[in-house]
Amino acid sequence: MSNTFGNKLKITTFGSSHGDAIGGVIDGFPQGIEVDFEEICRELQRRKTGNFAFSSQRKESDEVTFLSGIDEGMTNGFPIAFFIKNNNYRSRDYTDIKDVFRPSHADFAYFKKYGTDDFTGGYRASGRETTSWVVAGNLAKQALAKHGIGFVSYVSQIGQECETAHYTDLNLSFTPHNALPTPNPQTADRMLKAISQAQADNDSLGGVVTCIVTGVPYGVGNPVFDKLSSRLAAAMLSIPSSKGFDYGKGFDASSMRGSEHNDLFVNDHGKLRPATNRSGGIQGGISNGEDIYFRVAFKPVSSIGKPQQTVDIHGNNRTIAIGGRHDVCIVPRVLPVVESLAALVILDLML
Amino acid sequence: MSNTFGNKLKITTFGSSHGDAIGGVIDGFPQGIEVDFEEICRELQRRKTGNFAFSSQRKESDEVTFLSGIDEGMTNGFPIAFFIKNNNYRSRDYTDIKDVFRPSHADFAYFKKYGTDDFTGGYRASGRETTSWVVAGNLAKQALAKHGIGFVSYVSQIGQECETAHYTDLNLSFTPHNALPTPNPQTADRMLKAISQAQADNDSLGGVVTCIVTGVPYGVGNPVFDKLSSRLAAAMLSIPSSKGFDYGKGFDASSMRGSEHNDLFVNDHGKLRPATNRSGGIQGGISNGEDIYFRVAFKPVSSIGKPQQTVDIHGNNRTIAIGGRHDVCIVPRVLPVVESLAALVILDLML
Amino acid sequence: MSNTFGNKLKITTFGSSHGDAIGGVIDGFPQGIEVDFEEICRELQRRKTGNFAFSSQRKESDEVTFLSGIDEGMTNGFPIAFFIKNNNYRSRDYTDIKDVFRPSHADFAYFKKYGTDDFTGGYRASGRETTSWVVAGNLAKQALAKHGIGFVSYVSQIGQECETAHYTDLNLSFTPHNALPTPNPQTADRMLKAISQAQADNDSLGGVVTCIVTGVPYGVGNPVFDKLSSRLAAAMLSIPSSKGFDYGKGFDASSMRGSEHNDLFVNDHGKLRPATNRSGGIQGGISNGEDIYFRVAFKPVSSIGKPQQTVDIHGNNRTIAIGGRHDVCIVPRVLPVVESLAALVILDLML
Amino acid sequence: MSNTFGNKLKITTFGSSHGDAIGGVIDGFPQGIEVDFEEICRELQRRKTGNFAFSSQRKESDEVTFLSGIDEGMTNGFPIAFFIKNNNYRSRDYTDIKDVFRPSHADFAYFKKYGTDDFTGGYRASGRETTSWVVAGNLAKQALAKHGIGFVSYVSQIGQECETAHYTDLNLSFTPHNALPTPNPQTADRMLKAISQAQADNDSLGGVVTCIVTGVPYGVGNPVFDKLSSRLAAAMLSIPSSKGFDYGKGFDASSMRGSEHNDLFVNDHGKLRPATNRSGGIQGGISNGEDIYFRVAFKPVSSIGKPQQTVDIHGNNRTIAIGGRHDVCIVPRVLPVVESLAALVILDLML
Repeated sequence: MSNTFGNKLKITTFGSSHGDAIGGVIDGFPQGIEVDFEEICRELQRRKTGNFAFSSQRKESDEVTFLSGIDEGMTNGFPIAFFIKNNNYRSRDYTDIKDVFRPSHADFAYFKKYGTDDFTGGYRASGRETTSWVVAGNLAKQALAKHGIGFVSYVSQIGQECETAHYTDLNLSFTPHNALPTPNPQTADRMLKAISQAQADNDSLGGVVTCIVTGVPYGVGNPVFDKLSSRLAAAMLSIPSSKGFDYGKGFDASSMRGSEHNDLFVNDHGKLRPATNRSGGIQGGISNGEDIYFRVAFKPVSSIGKPQQTVDIHGNNRTIAIGGRHDVCIVPRVLPVVESLAALVILDLML
Repeated sequence: MSNTFGNKLKITTFGSSHGDAIGGVIDGFPQGIEVDFEEICRELQRRKTGNFAFSSQRKESDEVTFLSGIDEGMTNGFPIAFFIKNNNYRSRDYTDIKDVFRPSHADFAYFKKYGTDDFTGGYRASGRETTSWVVAGNLAKQALAKHGIGFVSYVSQIGQECETAHYTDLNLSFTPHNALPTPNPQTADRMLKAISQAQADNDSLGGVVTCIVTGVPYGVGNPVFDKLSSRLAAAMLSIPSSKGFDYGKGFDASSMRGSEHNDLFVNDHGKLRPATNRSGGIQGGISNGEDIYFRVAFKPVSSIGKPQQTVDIHGNNRTIAIGGRHDVCIVPRVLPVVESLAALVILDLML
Repeated sequence: MSNTFGNKLKITTFGSSHGDAIGGVIDGFPQGIEVDFEEICRELQRRKTGNFAFSSQRKESDEVTFLSGIDEGMTNGFPIAFFIKNNNYRSRDYTDIKDVFRPSHADFAYFKKYGTDDFTGGYRASGRETTSWVVAGNLAKQALAKHGIGFVSYVSQIGQECETAHYTDLNLSFTPHNALPTPNPQTADRMLKAISQAQADNDSLGGVVTCIVTGVPYGVGNPVFDKLSSRLAAAMLSIPSSKGFDYGKGFDASSMRGSEHNDLFVNDHGKLRPATNRSGGIQGGISNGEDIYFRVAFKPVSSIGKPQQTVDIHGNNRTIAIGGRHDVCIVPRVLPVVESLAALVILDLML
Repeated sequence: MSNTFGNKLKITTFGSSHGDAIGGVIDGFPQGIEVDFEEICRELQRRKTGNFAFSSQRKESDEVTFLSGIDEGMTNGFPIAFFIKNNNYRSRDYTDIKDVFRPSHADFAYFKKYGTDDFTGGYRASGRETTSWVVAGNLAKQALAKHGIGFVSYVSQIGQECETAHYTDLNLSFTPHNALPTPNPQTADRMLKAISQAQADNDSLGGVVTCIVTGVPYGVGNPVFDKLSSRLAAAMLSIPSSKGFDYGKGFDASSMRGSEHNDLFVNDHGKLRPATNRSGGIQGGISNGEDIYFRVAFKPVSSIGKPQQTVDIHGNNRTIAIGGRHDVCIVPRVLPVVESLAALVILDLML
């Protein structure tokens, strides 16, 4: 099992919701970055709540302790180790479903691979793991901010409610403390209604995140195997529940003709650049100086309150209902995770 | 720049269409696999032509020389080195466009990153690089075939013409020597018409490949960073012109409810398994014993015969038309590349 | 800068004597090993004191906190993270020598490489770093003990006093709480006298460690680049102050003839094995089932009480005397470090 | 099995004396180095003969074919792939000893590890493998020469005949076409006599190589795990028949006092540097701008003409004599291998 992410900038994570603590070690982080600890806390809060009334009732006290790598608020170029204590909860203490394979949950795959008899709770793979990603990723964002690189993301779809406008037509400086982190209030309303309805039905919803990275210089990424697009895809498909990734026009590009899709190069007052950005800021795997934008698709949360048929470890038919304890829709909470992984990838490729 | 793909099974590729040869070294390939050299040739042929009348006029004589790693037709567990001589062509010998940035081509990004004054031809990143991937990937497919693992892929969209049926409703044993490698003859007809029309218009078309991997055992992939889904995504987004990846219900899963998307586990005559496979054979990043299926989106080829506005290296406006020498649609030719990379990923994770 | 050691079993260390804590994350450690925490403490004690009256007066309270990877005393196969708090000392608080390059110390090299103006204390490279190695290495020793693999080491030379007997002629079950960790009491006496004399002279002494690994099965190590001998050499030359490594007859083999050095194979009651073990248990880079034995040479500690000429950062001549605070001879304390790194290498190659 | 050497500069080797060819791919080699192909040939010749009358009668025609990475005599920054055809010999075609474990040979270890029934010839691990190392290493030497870095090595011991003078007291510009590559003609005479005598006795001899690297700038190497000393040790202990490595005063440092061993820093006309170089140019794992010098110990060749007792694969006692076909002493031939690996390590750490 690999617990390390990145090449020159490596984060190795440890721990799970079952043990004493989770955390990570970040190796290769640049020296001399002043750390805004408040921002890390805000990001963890954002990951925990999605700034969003419908999020899970679970309480996580995400107080980060840094053990090394930061001297007087400044990174020193040595490994940054951090941990976050777990409050003593077990994510599946409800013993009645201890041996039951939750529909569409990874329980079954873990059980088949590792054969553990207590396969519950997700162990290392639980959503809680992403807390460590956000700590590391926010540090990366802070380092990238010195280079003028910024990250914005929003919920562009929840269930069947989509934000159809292109990001360039949206107000991306929407307050992140919105009821739902999406720029268009009308869309937010429709999404919130869909969520209320799903909640009333003891059901869950999938969705899509759109992320935009601004200010990335030319030349990030490599032409053969270590393409920026490839690295972003790998990162995004590491997020629990993610099912797809595309960038630029993405899947829509497939139905276009070359003459429609091509970005024509122009001389923009002495600066050579593409006049349009259907490519999404990456050509041949390498950033071209334009905004990078991409989408990540998430399936609906598999744990729902509605009763479902399944089997237990012994092959007996069982009915299961996992209500009340889980998010109806995980997508709003996933925004800082998407941004964090993107930041780790981009910083890694810039080192 | 990284020229290596894989962890335990590593392929390092070398060469470009500009030099004497291309090739690769495969390290970590299992011992004792009898090699079907004919199959490698057929796959290279498939990559070259797409079995498809409209493919580029370029002639590539892809005769592979193996230098090591195969004794009397059997892999010996040591590195497999191979190369393919280049015939002396230069992909951009047309000197009139030597200094011109082709619209939506990676020329510009290479120029910005490497500053080479002769940035033409794509060097290491050219489509020809995928020839080496197919050699390595076909060897991986041959090794996986011993485990009962098979690969099928087809063109599921070209331009606006889609194959809307789910793969389970299609006859996937369609002859690979079809006019177009897609199972439904009616869809093929519509696609061929779209291609003819685009060709008549000196334009190009994007498309989508659907790939199915059958027979993958439980447990391939890892729960945190080295997920099977993450690795497949990284592989597919390494293919030139790819813009997106999803697996299982993919982007469509985002508009579903949990109760619709969840695969319910059943006891199928003693075998525990999901009754449906909306998850696409991967849960929590790990194969669950069902078919793995995924899609890869490709943008339209950027080189088109239609005149386009662009600039040259000096910032002068130029009009460019790159007709006749390129595929109208690269998607049919990309099937063996998709399968090859998937095979390399899966074999790597199984070692 | 690399902070990671190992391939399949990776330890990434962090922290320095200047910060809050030191520690590490061990990734790839086998599951199901019951951890003897007392043994770790004993090893840390051994590293700290060398079981030896003349060791430095520095006090290190090496209480290890494990954050993850161990459930109810048993390793769980996930990353093992641990840390040890620093007591608030600074290894070079003596401000009079703040800008002075200590003779033969790495100060100068660090200064030239990193240009830090406060280059004192060794930062990540200090001897304290080896504390984390011993924690990880002792865990590895505990895992290897389940396979019947054992480690013994002793001081075979201090200054000009050598233990000339071959290890097979020595009583290696000597009590580790000896005045000096060397099996022959007469040799220990001579060594102790040499140390007393050096101490009286405000000087320091080098020495040699001999390490024997018993019970290693056939086949550990690889034939080309990842030889067991190569890996052990790399590990030993990572220890601060080490200057040389040899195994088997080592440098003495160079003066032998083939007919003297060759280990003849015999049929020992049905077991094929070499009758002698001049090869030191490794042939062609691979363990052959015999004892592995090797030596590591250490230079004398560079910090001595005797006044020495040097220069400061500004090029001024300075006289420096660094007495009382450092070991006269570091070699007795280094035994658990040698064993720890050897254990990490061997376990890594066995995974 | 690992077939790759290096981190940023990686060489992956392939092939063995049993197959069609040997060779390698060098990834990460700097761009813009003009290649002197003659020098590569000279180095291969030096590896083959040791410039030395007593070398093995084997004929190797080492004509290197470069497939990629060099354009018009200049490296282009892309992977350099090369191969050398094997002439059709088998290193152990003498079938009478096919199943016999040669005393002190790696046969036994390979057999135990891989269980192959035809374990002869050493496969990938044979001395022939070092041919590829010399090709890659000589390229590295050529790149380093642009930085003013040079390599000299000589035979400092054969059997019991030693060159006792320190390298600084020797004329290192001795002609490499000496009867024996050692600077002092008197020592050479004694060594040659020892070789003649061993040859007359159907025996073999070990020896020691001393290597000096001049012009290495400050700062090469890392302070914790990736020390220059550690990397050189790993490289040297990868060479077949090597048994030990030390640098600077090495094992002799162990018998010195700090006041004797310490290199005092001086202000040498404005340049701060150590007045002496007992440290061997590396302090704290990092080059300090002085000459780097180190030794590598080699055991006597295990294949000797003198009859020896051994067993075969079935446990039967056998007498074996392997005369006439092997070197009496491999050490003269190993000089370019030592230099090559040192160059690869240093270039890697400088990238």
